[in-house]
Amino acid sequence: MELAEFKKYEDEVIRLRRDFHMHPELGFEENRTSGIVRDYLNDLGIETRVMAKTGVVGEINNGGNKRIAIRADMDALPINEENDVPYRSIYPGKMHACGHDAHTAMLLVTAKILSRMEFEGNIRFIFQPAEEGLNGARKMVEEGAIDGVDSIFGLHVWANLPSGNIAISSGPVLANVDLFRVVIEGKGGHGASPHETMDPIVASSYIISSLQSIVSRNVDPMKSAVITVGKINGGTAFNIIPEEVEFEGTVRTFDEDVHNLIENRIKELIDNEARAFGAKGKIEYRHLNYATVNDERLAIIGRKVAVRIMNVVEQEPDMGGEDFSEYARIIPGLFAFLGTRNEGKGIIYPHHNPRFNVDESALIYGVAFEVNMAIELLKN
Amino acid sequence: MELAEFKKYEDEVIRLRRDFHMHPELGFEENRTSGIVRDYLNDLGIETRVMAKTGVVGEINNGGNKRIAIRADMDALPINEENDVPYRSIYPGKMHACGHDAHTAMLLVTAKILSRMEFEGNIRFIFQPAEEGLNGARKMVEEGAIDGVDSIFGLHVWANLPSGNIAISSGPVLANVDLFRVVIEGKGGHGASPHETMDPIVASSYIISSLQSIVSRNVDPMKSAVITVGKINGGTAFNIIPEEVEFEGTVRTFDEDVHNLIENRIKELIDNEARAFGAKGKIEYRHLNYATVNDERLAIIGRKVAVRIMNVVEQEPDMGGEDFSEYARIIPGLFAFLGTRNEGKGIIYPHHNPRFNVDESALIYGVAFEVNMAIELLKN
Amino acid sequence: MELAEFKKYEDEVIRLRRDFHMHPELGFEENRTSGIVRDYLNDLGIETRVMAKTGVVGEINNGGNKRIAIRADMDALPINEENDVPYRSIYPGKMHACGHDAHTAMLLVTAKILSRMEFEGNIRFIFQPAEEGLNGARKMVEEGAIDGVDSIFGLHVWANLPSGNIAISSGPVLANVDLFRVVIEGKGGHGASPHETMDPIVASSYIISSLQSIVSRNVDPMKSAVITVGKINGGTAFNIIPEEVEFEGTVRTFDEDVHNLIENRIKELIDNEARAFGAKGKIEYRHLNYATVNDERLAIIGRKVAVRIMNVVEQEPDMGGEDFSEYARIIPGLFAFLGTRNEGKGIIYPHHNPRFNVDESALIYGVAFEVNMAIELLKN
Amino acid sequence: MELAEFKKYEDEVIRLRRDFHMHPELGFEENRTSGIVRDYLNDLGIETRVMAKTGVVGEINNGGNKRIAIRADMDALPINEENDVPYRSIYPGKMHACGHDAHTAMLLVTAKILSRMEFEGNIRFIFQPAEEGLNGARKMVEEGAIDGVDSIFGLHVWANLPSGNIAISSGPVLANVDLFRVVIEGKGGHGASPHETMDPIVASSYIISSLQSIVSRNVDPMKSAVITVGKINGGTAFNIIPEEVEFEGTVRTFDEDVHNLIENRIKELIDNEARAFGAKGKIEYRHLNYATVNDERLAIIGRKVAVRIMNVVEQEPDMGGEDFSEYARIIPGLFAFLGTRNEGKGIIYPHHNPRFNVDESALIYGVAFEVNMAIELLKN
Repeated sequence: MELAEFKKYEDEVIRLRRDFHMHPELGFEENRTSGIVRDYLNDLGIETRVMAKTGVVGEINNGGNKRIAIRADMDALPINEENDVPYRSIYPGKMHACGHDAHTAMLLVTAKILSRMEFEGNIRFIFQPAEEGLNGARKMVEEGAIDGVDSIFGLHVWANLPSGNIAISSGPVLANVDLFRVVIEGKGGHGASPHETMDPIVASSYIISSLQSIVSRNVDPMKSAVITVGKINGGTAFNIIPEEVEFEGTVRTFDEDVHNLIENRIKELIDNEARAFGAKGKIEYRHLNYATVNDERLAIIGRKVAVRIMNVVEQEPDMGGEDFSEYARIIPGLFAFLGTRNEGKGIIYPHHNPRFNVDESALIYGVAFEVNMAIELLKN
Repeated sequence: MELAEFKKYEDEVIRLRRDFHMHPELGFEENRTSGIVRDYLNDLGIETRVMAKTGVVGEINNGGNKRIAIRADMDALPINEENDVPYRSIYPGKMHACGHDAHTAMLLVTAKILSRMEFEGNIRFIFQPAEEGLNGARKMVEEGAIDGVDSIFGLHVWANLPSGNIAISSGPVLANVDLFRVVIEGKGGHGASPHETMDPIVASSYIISSLQSIVSRNVDPMKSAVITVGKINGGTAFNIIPEEVEFEGTVRTFDEDVHNLIENRIKELIDNEARAFGAKGKIEYRHLNYATVNDERLAIIGRKVAVRIMNVVEQEPDMGGEDFSEYARIIPGLFAFLGTRNEGKGIIYPHHNPRFNVDESALIYGVAFEVNMAIELLKN
Repeated sequence: MELAEFKKYEDEVIRLRRDFHMHPELGFEENRTSGIVRDYLNDLGIETRVMAKTGVVGEINNGGNKRIAIRADMDALPINEENDVPYRSIYPGKMHACGHDAHTAMLLVTAKILSRMEFEGNIRFIFQPAEEGLNGARKMVEEGAIDGVDSIFGLHVWANLPSGNIAISSGPVLANVDLFRVVIEGKGGHGASPHETMDPIVASSYIISSLQSIVSRNVDPMKSAVITVGKINGGTAFNIIPEEVEFEGTVRTFDEDVHNLIENRIKELIDNEARAFGAKGKIEYRHLNYATVNDERLAIIGRKVAVRIMNVVEQEPDMGGEDFSEYARIIPGLFAFLGTRNEGKGIIYPHHNPRFNVDESALIYGVAFEVNMAIELLKN
Repeated sequence: MELAEFKKYEDEVIRLRRDFHMHPELGFEENRTSGIVRDYLNDLGIETRVMAKTGVVGEINNGGNKRIAIRADMDALPINEENDVPYRSIYPGKMHACGHDAHTAMLLVTAKILSRMEFEGNIRFIFQPAEEGLNGARKMVEEGAIDGVDSIFGLHVWANLPSGNIAISSGPVLANVDLFRVVIEGKGGHGASPHETMDPIVASSYIISSLQSIVSRNVDPMKSAVITVGKINGGTAFNIIPEEVEFEGTVRTFDEDVHNLIENRIKELIDNEARAFGAKGKIEYRHLNYATVNDERLAIIGRKVAVRIMNVVEQEPDMGGEDFSEYARIIPGLFAFLGTRNEGKGIIYPHHNPRFNVDESALIYGVAFEVNMAIELLKN
């Protein structure tokens, strides 16, 4: 289908997006959004299943052996919107600051258009909850969201890429994400008597300093890795040595060997260095997201489809993470980045920023890509 | 006066102490306590002045040139009492966990006894507010509490010293206390992109590690010093690098050169080390209490007086602090420590502990010391 | 020319290599080697120029506008050879432990073969001194070694790659190399009186710890960088605090922005952190080698030529450095890696190891590549 | 005996001192010095025993039950003298830079004077070797040097105290001295490939930083302690990560609990922190000298004796060490400090300095103190 034919759906995709934007819902609480999605699909004659609490899956079945899936995520963030727009979030402290409103709107319109087209094959629409830190995708997979699916793709609006562009690469595009929580247990007491205590603030300081040596010395310099401690808390008064200090952080990697190396080194370092100070280092280390690795064949098809509609660029791997990886590690997947930056319109703020926005003129391009990609995939 | 004669006042001092204990009031809020003190002194025929918001000063004037002062503090702490006693604090979250209830009770009874005795000279009774971190003593001095006074003494009940003992030493007994608050200002951002930020958690960790070198390398090993960071806070999420980290601490010293050295070194170290990381180190450094230094002559007199009543021991200097120093740096002062520990009665918990208590049988010894010391001082 | 035709030169290239191997000469002292090279070229009827002290440049001029160059390096290392071979180094403490003996031998035989062939164009043979840490290449360039040359290539024998393989990639293959020397000036004194000194060992320890944060926090995790401190020295006795500590290190990068960032951060960090300790940080920072970046067109031609003779593989960028980059930053260049590992023959030791060796059966492949590549380049 | 009577021996004590000064001998090599001592005592009719290789013990026996001892040490230091005096050391690289020449000279003249006096009791003269780091005193004790002795005293010339003064205190005057040697074993390799190594320079830096926390956090701030790392060595080239780093240091304490605490903490910290980096920390920890603690009774007698000859001052405890402690931990001992500083004569350099010297006019005061103290001790 040519781009011009999509234009008549532009108003609808924007209207849908603004409605979702005004009513942001946090992960696993997307009840309103989820209800709208279900009704919309049902109205198109697409049967739906609810899974993972607030997730919705629908499917167009036009015979044949092939089954592909398109995925959108629906959750918002605990951020207070600072944009002054008519469709501003009406819920204080909640905001679609990552563009999932646009993802959901585009996929609904994509479903409508596909439901009116003729083709052989089966197309599944996956509307998942809770992408932000809660790994809704894993739950969807566990409950069968991609059972029987041959390949999957999805779009993410992208604040660093100007409207009119789409970034499609094969191989890793988003990183492995781990979370760690550390408690350094010392022994509290009066700040004037350090010798009767085991100072966990001092121990934590040396430990966080030492953690820097993992990236600087243990990781192959040709490979990428990040260890960030994002939060530290300890103590209640200037003159009391606390019982313990808590800190939390994240690890980002692409390479699985580096991933394992860092997990082991962090545990080894914290355990032994805490002992070095006579303290106890307790660590909880959790894997959050796998690296998102695009299938080479799908990337080639994606670029071929996209180039007829938009400018196509390469996507440098980014240390951010995505639970789209939950699908893409099981079946071939493609995660593409739709440019929605528009400096002329002042749409320049990064994801997760209270002033984040998307250039809505890009949305119909996203729809066009989804529709054509789905058709093309069923042919290949 | 012999010890036996004091015994008839024992019930009263305990009753007063229990009343204060049940009604603890924080610094500069000692309205009930202050009112009781004023009425009690007025009933004895002692005129009073209110100063420093809730402080009370009274004076017995029996002619002559000499004027000495006795000091008690009245404030409680923001601690929830865990003792199961009939006179337990009735105010949740407030407790006399440092024994100021006892100090006030003893000095009231001391005033009563002295008001019935005959002697030449003038005795001032100073009931000060807000000893705990608020330096009520400085305010009292500024408002004239020790104007015209030749010398001053005070007692502190002491959880480390068994009942029946009093510790009296000349020279420094309690330390200089400083407070510092540091903000390390970096640049926040996504935890996956440290290179776009200036990580203040990492900078703070290196800085707190480096602070250890001040005591270990810059301070004369024959002199005493403590630098404690008691509190650190930074960041709100595991995957976001925060804008800044805040930490607070205390410095304890006896020697004025060491005191100045440490203040200068902390400032120099934080300023320059923050720069080393491309961050900005902001420091607020405040002097809280001077070291409490006992006058040698007063200590000799005190020991002579005390030995007739109790066992007298030496007091090793302690890194704790006291605003009694505000008086003792202007006029000769003596700060003595009255043993109130009693293992048999389970009175073993340290000051500022929710189970702190005092062996009330020691209180009348305190009264006896105060009365006899006052008389003796007027003779010398 | 087919591989079989080269075989008759195999004995000669091995004989030459062994002679150079037995007589290793350090950078800018390659007098014997240089003399042999000059005589050899002159015997072929190739005129030579001496430059950069011990460098030799010769050229075959067969008309036409094109002029290409082939480069070999001649210097040995200050290492004591531990190989037990008939052609072992006869100079104690000197050894061809990086394979420059093979480079020189191959290029001589290459010159001989080319001098007997017919072709249009001009081929320059560059035998440079002092590749190891002394940047002989820069001197050669300054003295005109590549004036008028259109493109250049060179080979390096490679201990990680089995014989029969050649690695050819476009883009960066070897890193930017910097050297830094730091002196932390404190104040010495008796180990029992740290307060009368400014301990440079403690300051240096905190500084080297802090340096780790540059790679872990300041460098884009998608980019490669290494900061290594390889040497530290301070103090003469267990109980004396020394005046100063000296340490040296190297920085490896590919990206010029990262290169500049690290230089600036190291200087900023050392200067300010030394101040934080009341010390003085003096740093000498020198650029040694540029990154070696292969020209894409040359890499394509190289792979086409090589594939007819050997197995061709990709070369992952390596954090090692080369002064071949001095040529390749001015004119298009190709630096290829000739496999000389042979586990069967026990030739498994890394470069710069006292047991390093090369599988001599690979040398004639190197000659064949050089000859064919030269002819091919003149055609393109 | 009055001071005037000693004056006639002044030339002799200076002549002896200069002779020893010109002929300095290192620990356990004091053959010439030892021979002179032996002959000198024998000439006085005092029988001698040689022990601890080069030590000499003689005794005057005048009956009675009492036996006291006086001790001098005889060894020089491996320092090249920079004084321009007629009696300058004739042995390059050896020098009496701690005043043991004066100690030996004074005790010889003391023996001569005492041998001519009448008194009841027995006086032993102990001339020990190897005080500097070799603990000659321990060997002397093991071989019976103080068997049967009731009490012992000794003098040390003191560069911080002006001539005419003597410092005598009871309790600890010089510190416990320990030595530690640490090897951090990592894994060496190319500076460009840190991930294939275990960098011992980085591990050592973090470890030495962490060591600062022992004095700053684990030691009672009212007690004295020093941990100094005086020497660090690792690596041979800027671009090679070494196999290991070695560092050495000293620990100074007075309190035995603090002494044990520090030894345990250093071992615990180095062992565990090396593990934290995947390295191995090997530590050799040796006790060198006990704290020198003066007996209270002897100090009182000493001050009574000294005050008739010189100005007597208090000696603040010093973190330096002495093997006189080997005697004083077994029998009551007194170690006094004889002022030999003279700014007018330019005698201002500290002990162990190549320009150290002693004001010789003080030596006869030292003799007077030794003689009178010996006589007084025998009476008490």
